[in-house]
Amino acid sequence: MQDFGFTLAAVEGAARAGLLATAHGDVPTPTFMAVGTAGTVKAMTADAVRATGANIVLGNTYHLMLRPTAERVARLGGLHKMMDWPGPILTDSGGFQIMSLAKLRKMDETGVTFRSHLDGSAHHLSPERSMEIQFLLDATITMVLDECTKFPATREEAADSMRLSSRWAKRSRDAFVRRAGYGQFGIVQGSVFQDLRRESVDALTALDFEGYAIGGLAVGEGQAMMYEVLDFTAPMLPADKPRYLMGVGTPDDLLGAVARGVDMFDCVMPTRAGRTARAFTARGVFNLRNARFIDDARALDERCGCLCCTRHTRAYLHHLFRAEEMLGPMLLTMHNLTYYQSLMTGARAAILAGGYADYAAGVRAGWEDAAHG
Amino acid sequence: MQDFGFTLAAVEGAARAGLLATAHGDVPTPTFMAVGTAGTVKAMTADAVRATGANIVLGNTYHLMLRPTAERVARLGGLHKMMDWPGPILTDSGGFQIMSLAKLRKMDETGVTFRSHLDGSAHHLSPERSMEIQFLLDATITMVLDECTKFPATREEAADSMRLSSRWAKRSRDAFVRRAGYGQFGIVQGSVFQDLRRESVDALTALDFEGYAIGGLAVGEGQAMMYEVLDFTAPMLPADKPRYLMGVGTPDDLLGAVARGVDMFDCVMPTRAGRTARAFTARGVFNLRNARFIDDARALDERCGCLCCTRHTRAYLHHLFRAEEMLGPMLLTMHNLTYYQSLMTGARAAILAGGYADYAAGVRAGWEDAAHG
Repeated sequence: MQDFGFTLAAVEGAARAGLLATAHGDVPTPTFMAVGTAGTVKAMTADAVRATGANIVLGNTYHLMLRPTAERVARLGGLHKMMDWPGPILTDSGGFQIMSLAKLRKMDETGVTFRSHLDGSAHHLSPERSMEIQFLLDATITMVLDECTKFPATREEAADSMRLSSRWAKRSRDAFVRRAGYGQFGIVQGSVFQDLRRESVDALTALDFEGYAIGGLAVGEGQAMMYEVLDFTAPMLPADKPRYLMGVGTPDDLLGAVARGVDMFDCVMPTRAGRTARAFTARGVFNLRNARFIDDARALDERCGCLCCTRHTRAYLHHLFRAEEMLGPMLLTMHNLTYYQSLMTGARAAILAGGYADYAAGVRAGWEDAAHG
Repeated sequence: MQDFGFTLAAVEGAARAGLLATAHGDVPTPTFMAVGTAGTVKAMTADAVRATGANIVLGNTYHLMLRPTAERVARLGGLHKMMDWPGPILTDSGGFQIMSLAKLRKMDETGVTFRSHLDGSAHHLSPERSMEIQFLLDATITMVLDECTKFPATREEAADSMRLSSRWAKRSRDAFVRRAGYGQFGIVQGSVFQDLRRESVDALTALDFEGYAIGGLAVGEGQAMMYEVLDFTAPMLPADKPRYLMGVGTPDDLLGAVARGVDMFDCVMPTRAGRTARAFTARGVFNLRNARFIDDARALDERCGCLCCTRHTRAYLHHLFRAEEMLGPMLLTMHNLTYYQSLMTGARAAILAGGYADYAAGVRAGWEDAAHG
């Protein structure tokens, strides 16, 4: 089994094209991870996810620990086997979703105590238990348990929160079971404060993780501030390790973050938008419920090779959403994920060719045509 | 383009194995038509429908005339193109669903006046308009407009209703646009009365349809009485034309009706059941929500080659339905339609080999194992 590793193939400015090697296959970067919250990318078979060009998917520890439970997934042979995804899987730590979904959350030095949003049952998630759950799920990439610092936070709140995350990162690293081809990522916190981000990076790099995530962004700070934090944080990170910007974002966010040195992304945006009739295309965002599509016999995105765009019309998609047919969300999820993948594939090719700035400008110019799409 | 035609390949008792030739491809019979009510087989891409082994699907005139409208479907190139199904499509006449779904229905000699269940808009469906709609949809097989006689009906009610259907059949035949490879089916009514069924068959065969449906069954009369009506009605029909039993049924109904000389079926059962966690298998019907499947690592149906059965476990399906993930209905619809197709494929092979009785007995014996499944 090959070792977990990351190699850079090209760098243009801060933008990077790389290759992540794992026990479950290689991932060319930059890459977007489709979110498979509860052991399924919503509205998609695993074959359909593969057909979008996806190389790696994400699973949510919080959802899976509650249902079907990590122990049950392990008995079924792990998450890869259960969901028919033999490729790489990254799992989050569960912490972020406990804070947004669970009831009666209480955090202390040991971890988080909470009640399930499903049945009210009581649970405790410590760094050690989060690592154990991700081990049971057979995650290719395990994330440390951290606290996602709220925004806005005072300097003192951000420092306290980041330091708790650093202590949990140490415990997470100690509890991580090392196996060839598997990796663990630390998560940089520190809110918008440059010196706190530096302190966080120093604490994490001392633990020599296989990769580093930038956390605490896309929580309401806005794109300009997110870019500002990326501008000073990304260069702090080791050049030879993958960098993952958690929970981001729009196609435009991705283009901007790639330019600032990010290699990996995840977001529910393409899947969630697909279920609510919103499509990301070369000509911007369309809402397929809009009456202007009722007789539109064109492909959703003429430049897209997905099943939705090569076999169907905008009028048909409009009809499916009007009729509340499941095929609407299915086709639009396929398309949106394909669009995100092609955006990343295009970015990688452009970086390799030394033309990323032109590529990003060209893609953005296309979106301006939405009114004429 | 080849002519519309039907040839018998083998007969065993009353059971028939045949081949239906159409402008859009051949259909080996007996066959089951998946129901694509609103221009989509619910929860399925057209590729997924093809993968079940389906050769022909059904569209519902009532739904399509209201949304997206027949004229709009025609502008999109017809139903085949719109839904990515180049194969044969049979459309019903709209009459049955008006009586079960529409509001303020009023029937007279001219046709049916009703209000849409979607927006309350007023519509009139005559035999001529039904034929026009099915023409606009580009139906491979057009059904005459009839009245599905209620059950129970007095002899007089059944006779009056059947005779109205016969007059509408004549008008439907006159309004049908003949094209090579396209066909039109008459619909036999007459409730449970043998002489009325005979009168209906005589009126219809005088019009020389390309096929004949047996209507007014599966409306509450029960399997025994349905079989009784089939026993005396099927032999009245021309041997060299396809016979279609409308809206039937369970796998057991299909086995029994094939034995009685039926060639074609349609029913929402496999698709609707799939969306509500019920699976038809070689070992009977399972409800995947049942807690007994929570740790069941076996394939849903070990004898099935569908994606659901070859890639996933019962425990995963149980999880998907518990978590209300769309993939549950998607996978179970795939399986159920594959099961129905394999049931018909098996029946055809058995009739060709002269072993249909043994085949049906063997399939039924398998269902008895459900408790041990």
